[in-house]
Amino acid sequence: MTDIRHSLTLLGLGAMGTALARTWLAAGHLLTVWNRTSERAEPLAAAGAVVAPSAAAAVAANRLVVVCLLDDASVGAALSGADLAGRDIVNLTTSTPAQARARAAWAAERGARFLDGGIMAVPPMIGVPGSGAYVFYSGPQDAFAAHREVLAVPAGTTYVGDDPGFAALHDVALLSGMYGMFAGVAHAFALIRREKIAARSFAPLLSGWLTAMAASVAQTAEHLDAGDYTRDVVSNLAMQVAGAPTLLSTAEEQGVSPELITPYLKLMERRLADGHGDEDTTGVIDLLLR
Amino acid sequence: MTDIRHSLTLLGLGAMGTALARTWLAAGHLLTVWNRTSERAEPLAAAGAVVAPSAAAAVAANRLVVVCLLDDASVGAALSGADLAGRDIVNLTTSTPAQARARAAWAAERGARFLDGGIMAVPPMIGVPGSGAYVFYSGPQDAFAAHREVLAVPAGTTYVGDDPGFAALHDVALLSGMYGMFAGVAHAFALIRREKIAARSFAPLLSGWLTAMAASVAQTAEHLDAGDYTRDVVSNLAMQVAGAPTLLSTAEEQGVSPELITPYLKLMERRLADGHGDEDTTGVIDLLLR
Repeated sequence: MTDIRHSLTLLGLGAMGTALARTWLAAGHLLTVWNRTSERAEPLAAAGAVVAPSAAAAVAANRLVVVCLLDDASVGAALSGADLAGRDIVNLTTSTPAQARARAAWAAERGARFLDGGIMAVPPMIGVPGSGAYVFYSGPQDAFAAHREVLAVPAGTTYVGDDPGFAALHDVALLSGMYGMFAGVAHAFALIRREKIAARSFAPLLSGWLTAMAASVAQTAEHLDAGDYTRDVVSNLAMQVAGAPTLLSTAEEQGVSPELITPYLKLMERRLADGHGDEDTTGVIDLLLR
Repeated sequence: MTDIRHSLTLLGLGAMGTALARTWLAAGHLLTVWNRTSERAEPLAAAGAVVAPSAAAAVAANRLVVVCLLDDASVGAALSGADLAGRDIVNLTTSTPAQARARAAWAAERGARFLDGGIMAVPPMIGVPGSGAYVFYSGPQDAFAAHREVLAVPAGTTYVGDDPGFAALHDVALLSGMYGMFAGVAHAFALIRREKIAARSFAPLLSGWLTAMAASVAQTAEHLDAGDYTRDVVSNLAMQVAGAPTLLSTAEEQGVSPELITPYLKLMERRLADGHGDEDTTGVIDLLLR
């Protein structure tokens, strides 16, 4: 919370945009909003937002313009008729790193500073202290510094560099990592599904184990930065590959398709076959790079 | 640590068996050991272990017989000439659930009680307070109760039921879940690998995110136990599938093979196509069951 009332514009009132808008309004900031379909703006008008008749008018209202639309094409469409000169655009729309970089160049040509953001939260977490919600930002550090305070109202801020693609890259990397974990979780639950084991008694064992194993990410990073994947290895690749048949046989016994675990096990085997049995599993990363 | 000196036998002195032996000896227990190749027993003899000349002799020495061999076939071979009547066998050898159940029946025919165990640790964690090492046990509860104290010396104990296959099942399920997470971690690191991003600055973001998302395991369990995958869903399957192209495009941009994330994304799509867009991702589990 801040003593100073900021003035900003928000384009896009989907579930996430609406959550952002409500948080800024609740904190007393002066908010101008626009949405392609105006009905979504009505409840926010009642809460004190100024509803602009067009995206161009909304952009004209404030130096800081936060954009939270469906996709990058929507951003281009919404901003095409607006005068961006002198504006600071903070784009929270889901994008790939290349889209964010192209959009940053596009904005620069039009005289705007451009920050890209990647939101690590779902709407119900926005504006909730202690929810863990945060947003990755990348782009010009001075632009980030200028708006950090108001950007920190709805969620934590994590600045990851001046390359405008880095926020999206961090966002996508973490989401991709999460889906890998979810795949492992799905396989684990499938294995116990037909047994007399309550999922809720199994869950804390699984989440506790995954949390403990998440600590290995730090060692993987050390290996990558050092270019040496054999340091302080306690369970080497040869041993881990030797254990794979037990995992696959168990899946077979339990009537579970191994499709979510075989791709990783195969890459471990490939790395072992390449003569890296004394490493841990870090070398799998190199096999993914084209 | 305990005041009472227990007397037990350990078959198998690989890295794990040796770590177990050293911990029991350090705690003052009377330990008889056997290994197929006797050289591995020599350092333990110097530390106070009795070295038996055969597996049969080692089994004859104590009621409690812990077995930590290469695989289930090794267990059958080592115990084939031993008199198991009246013995309590605790099998820590890596097995599938079906192997553990068959071995339990085999032991019962020979007059022994049989507990199976799944070790959730690597050898350097054994006997180290605070390491988080623990062992899943399953089989007759009275047998577990009788030996819990001595079994708790090298690592924590988690009893998961009288079905002798359940320890192996829990062990394999957690390891499989871990490899899923490792697959996600590998993909995430691969995405940033060619950028000017230090892996060690990225690592805490990734491990923090995975740790936060591991909490979702509890909700998945509630869904499974309730048979309703739509309760309290904050990011539904339709929304998550809509985000998948950004993940795949980013992998393409960064020159990263998507092979570790596509199997899960495809299953999400299949579940959505089956008409479950209002669920979270729990339904993927059902698609794995044959």
